[in-house]
Amino acid sequence: MLHLNAFLMGVGHHEAAWRHPRTDPSLVNDVRHFQNLATIAERGAFDSVFLADGVQIWGDVQHTAAGKFEPITLLTAMAAATTHVGLIATASTSYTEPYNLARLFSSLDHISGGRAGWNIVTSAGDRAAQNFNRDAVADHAERYERADEFLDVVTALWDSWDDDALVVDPASGVFADPDKVHEINHRGRFYQVRGPLNAVRSPQGRPLLVQAGSSEDGKAFAARHAEAVFTAQQTFEEGQAFYRDLKSRLAANDRLPDELKVLPGIVPVLGSTEAEARRLSDELDELIVPVRAVRQLSELIGVDLNDHPLDAPLPPLPPVTHINGAKSRFELVRDLAERDKLTLRQLIGRLGGGRGHQVIAGTPVQIADHIQRWHEGGAADGFNVMPPLLPSGLEEFVDHVIPELRRRGLFRTGYSADTLRGHYGLARPVGRFERISR
Amino acid sequence: MLHLNAFLMGVGHHEAAWRHPRTDPSLVNDVRHFQNLATIAERGAFDSVFLADGVQIWGDVQHTAAGKFEPITLLTAMAAATTHVGLIATASTSYTEPYNLARLFSSLDHISGGRAGWNIVTSAGDRAAQNFNRDAVADHAERYERADEFLDVVTALWDSWDDDALVVDPASGVFADPDKVHEINHRGRFYQVRGPLNAVRSPQGRPLLVQAGSSEDGKAFAARHAEAVFTAQQTFEEGQAFYRDLKSRLAANDRLPDELKVLPGIVPVLGSTEAEARRLSDELDELIVPVRAVRQLSELIGVDLNDHPLDAPLPPLPPVTHINGAKSRFELVRDLAERDKLTLRQLIGRLGGGRGHQVIAGTPVQIADHIQRWHEGGAADGFNVMPPLLPSGLEEFVDHVIPELRRRGLFRTGYSADTLRGHYGLARPVGRFERISR
Repeated sequence: MLHLNAFLMGVGHHEAAWRHPRTDPSLVNDVRHFQNLATIAERGAFDSVFLADGVQIWGDVQHTAAGKFEPITLLTAMAAATTHVGLIATASTSYTEPYNLARLFSSLDHISGGRAGWNIVTSAGDRAAQNFNRDAVADHAERYERADEFLDVVTALWDSWDDDALVVDPASGVFADPDKVHEINHRGRFYQVRGPLNAVRSPQGRPLLVQAGSSEDGKAFAARHAEAVFTAQQTFEEGQAFYRDLKSRLAANDRLPDELKVLPGIVPVLGSTEAEARRLSDELDELIVPVRAVRQLSELIGVDLNDHPLDAPLPPLPPVTHINGAKSRFELVRDLAERDKLTLRQLIGRLGGGRGHQVIAGTPVQIADHIQRWHEGGAADGFNVMPPLLPSGLEEFVDHVIPELRRRGLFRTGYSADTLRGHYGLARPVGRFERISR
Repeated sequence: MLHLNAFLMGVGHHEAAWRHPRTDPSLVNDVRHFQNLATIAERGAFDSVFLADGVQIWGDVQHTAAGKFEPITLLTAMAAATTHVGLIATASTSYTEPYNLARLFSSLDHISGGRAGWNIVTSAGDRAAQNFNRDAVADHAERYERADEFLDVVTALWDSWDDDALVVDPASGVFADPDKVHEINHRGRFYQVRGPLNAVRSPQGRPLLVQAGSSEDGKAFAARHAEAVFTAQQTFEEGQAFYRDLKSRLAANDRLPDELKVLPGIVPVLGSTEAEARRLSDELDELIVPVRAVRQLSELIGVDLNDHPLDAPLPPLPPVTHINGAKSRFELVRDLAERDKLTLRQLIGRLGGGRGHQVIAGTPVQIADHIQRWHEGGAADGFNVMPPLLPSGLEEFVDHVIPELRRRGLFRTGYSADTLRGHYGLARPVGRFERISR
């Protein structure tokens, strides 16, 4: 069975979405808009909804549809409006304390009845670092080393109360069995944390772990920790290669192929005919503000292109070893520009729909064909669906693409589980201290 | 007009609440319980509800009704169930980054439509420190110095988008006016933060600032920053003295007396007759587990009494200058034990209802008399209401005490404002960068 995640961003993933007449830009900052989107995703029986995040102003303030919500709180509000759909928030391992983040995700998992997921990021860029007592970002490898240790601490804290630690016996006055509540006594290179967490174990045991970096460090990290991976892949062959690569790394970590789901991003620009879809795509691309797009591209790949002429080919780019940002996205953009010999203006046009994710303009049948091909061809366990316009693009996907996928027997007709882990077909982890005591 | 805050804690403030037949201890960990409590408080037109917090296991694991929710997420869920009541979360300045905390509170303020408040604490105790890379807690004065700087950073971040920074003009592609979005460029002793916050200014401009420490450092801090103060005062005279003291410190900070509201805690043990109220009070005290109460007391005052005989008077206590925890609570407990010549067992009985806050068993009229006396006698702008049992104690207060207060013209009959600041009669702050540019 296919897995579908709805990646929600403002009023749509196309960078000019807020300028298009089919969106209402005031919704970017309206909590009811996000509750509505979660409700639509749940109507389609999506596995989950997902919010990206950064801990800095991103892109060009003047031309970017600025948000205002922090993802964990926003998903908590969306939890109140839904009952089944999973809720995945992005949060950084570089600029927060593991005890605090473990608590926030545990709390979201409790509040939502087992629907929380964490998209783990390490936060590229000096702008983020400068909001957290640093002049510059740590290098890529160190960020991942820190992230590894951070994950050890957080999962230990989530496990620090055994599932059956609560006794709750008013007669004797015993609320919990202290032998089932564990200090974690972590002492590592970056963190020293005693524990236990001040929260009983959450419905999923551990919130779902998601990861999106596709660099070497990122893939190694995913193979150790991630249960779902969001990735940007431009071609079917690249998608197959990435899928095989990632799955092949699991055995060395004592994991089975099914314990990690690979979900490439797709921006479905839908129309009732292909021509109608292309018209919408063109309308959107014409609304791109080049100065904004170049600034966003510069941040995305970690190379300053702001003063580069729009109608010239890209300048020579540094080797990827010199890139301290999103290495895999840098390579994707470099390869795309080289392969199709694009000027900067052409490149931002190609990236405007999905920041490097595949943009496909077509009918619901054509989108379903694409999804089926990737799924059956060993390139995807499912898709990270990125509607170009919101809510309309999500509604169209739910009303027209999902029924087509169901007709083909590829997607569930309703929820058969109550938790996010259940939707993704993943087991509930046994706590590490329970393992020891058994 | 009187101000009322409902301090919510598990199934009640009495430390044995969960053992009493009038509570259901499973509700301690049920989000619907807290949504129900917020709804009851809103039915009574309370100014706000409030959640305490610590970043460690508190008290005795075996005998304490352990929770599992983090306050900001829990209040977000409560926001979804209500429309008017204010939502105040405790959070520490010692173990979190100002950028992260500014975002979380801004997000809660946006989601709730202007109902967020922050109870600022500095987190006493080594157990908390040991969850955050430290062996021991920093000393009291340093914690407050850090808190001062933390407040400067957080309020600057909240102000970093002018109120009118958003343009949202699809035709020109201009979403925001970059001249109205400000870097804060803070470089201090503890923090270095560039900004701006990645969130537009919130409905209240700044969430309400609340403080609860009543030590010298705490009072000086409150006079600089706090707009509401929760405090524990055992007698009317002490309450008056504290009230006068705090209000007298405002002028030196260019503030008016009305810009800070003083709310002493009160645990109303209600009965339809005084005898009935006393019976409930006795029932609860009989359910106290001494080992738990002594452990909690030890943590509360920062002196280890766990091995002290229950039926002996307190041992000689160190001078308050040696106490690195909650200094004012230490003094309150010391004075109470000395004044009434209490054994340890008697002391934990006296503290079991409210951890040092005033416990009053009586009829609704008697409770209203007490509130009126303190309010009219210059000892309180309102009260921090701490029901011994939840939800029943809050329901009784709303159904019987509030109507009595309304009959006397002391409390609002309904909400006349939409924001937490509005309920407390506090102005919406002008952003500091707007001040400069005007």
